[in-house]
Amino acid sequence: MNNIKIDNNVFIPMPVTLVGCLLKGRANLMTAGWVSRVNANPPWIGIGIGRVHATAEGIVENKSFSICFPNRTDIAKTDYCGIVSGKKVDKSSLFTLFYGDLKTAPMIDEASLNLECSLVQTIEGPTNFFFVGEIKGAYASQKCLENGKVNPTKADFLFLTIPDNSYWSLGESVGQAWSIGNQLIKK
Amino acid sequence: MNNIKIDNNVFIPMPVTLVGCLLKGRANLMTAGWVSRVNANPPWIGIGIGRVHATAEGIVENKSFSICFPNRTDIAKTDYCGIVSGKKVDKSSLFTLFYGDLKTAPMIDEASLNLECSLVQTIEGPTNFFFVGEIKGAYASQKCLENGKVNPTKADFLFLTIPDNSYWSLGESVGQAWSIGNQLIKK
Repeated sequence: MNNIKIDNNVFIPMPVTLVGCLLKGRANLMTAGWVSRVNANPPWIGIGIGRVHATAEGIVENKSFSICFPNRTDIAKTDYCGIVSGKKVDKSSLFTLFYGDLKTAPMIDEASLNLECSLVQTIEGPTNFFFVGEIKGAYASQKCLENGKVNPTKADFLFLTIPDNSYWSLGESVGQAWSIGNQLIKK
Repeated sequence: MNNIKIDNNVFIPMPVTLVGCLLKGRANLMTAGWVSRVNANPPWIGIGIGRVHATAEGIVENKSFSICFPNRTDIAKTDYCGIVSGKKVDKSSLFTLFYGDLKTAPMIDEASLNLECSLVQTIEGPTNFFFVGEIKGAYASQKCLENGKVNPTKADFLFLTIPDNSYWSLGESVGQAWSIGNQLIKK
């Protein structure tokens, strides 16, 4: 057998996002990677945030948040938003912010993709909240669009792995989904 | 402004996993990318599965599941598991399966990383379940370990983007987390 047992508390590879919220009326951004779509229709997305973070307070207060996908141009600013707390530092002027219909979910014009979300429900874990929101508005940088759809290479999505604590770019395309597996279908 | 409004129902870049469960006693695997850690301690992880899928039935029945991270060697088999349903096709002999302490969460020896999970709670969305499990056992391929930790490049984690429906490898390291942002801290 190739596989051997390792410590249970494994971090999985994750997309790098900035979560926006209002904090006592001021825009705040926090780096986060615990993110997944949760429901197809309506479009729900979830984000895991440590209970101690300012962002958790802001989301509970305003019942809305954004999930923004930065690119490598802003890797230092993105990392900074995960190092300093909105409780101590004003991060509201780091980026060019804009608002959509919700008016309470700050988004980032420098980001490749921005989603504004309205809180639907919350999983209250012992150390983390997992906030599930409905995507109420989606915005993409015109530089990343091709025929009206987000092109992943142009979007330059970032990923994070732990414990090596590396940010990664997307690599090469290694196959087409719902296609490359067709060769195994028994006729 | 660079950003323009696009359709709300956006898919975000996601890791490629195979979700294992028992289905009336038989091992089944389904490709899935809606996955995120949910709580730090204890280690919880969530996975989104369409309500209509066999995997949803299996997880509800056995209250356990696995999340397995395949590499590009098995890209065709991985894609195949997302094309054909366990309701119609026996996928139990595609890979070399093994079981951990739970005994009801089939894992894949060819995969780089395997997590066996015990169901903690479920978000019941209109079209999808989001199953949250506690990681009860983690297993990594010895080929992917470096000093006892998973090396992401050796693990060759895969990602999926939609609507271009591409599988991707991890690209180049573009910075160190909790480090590259330190340059912005005001002294």
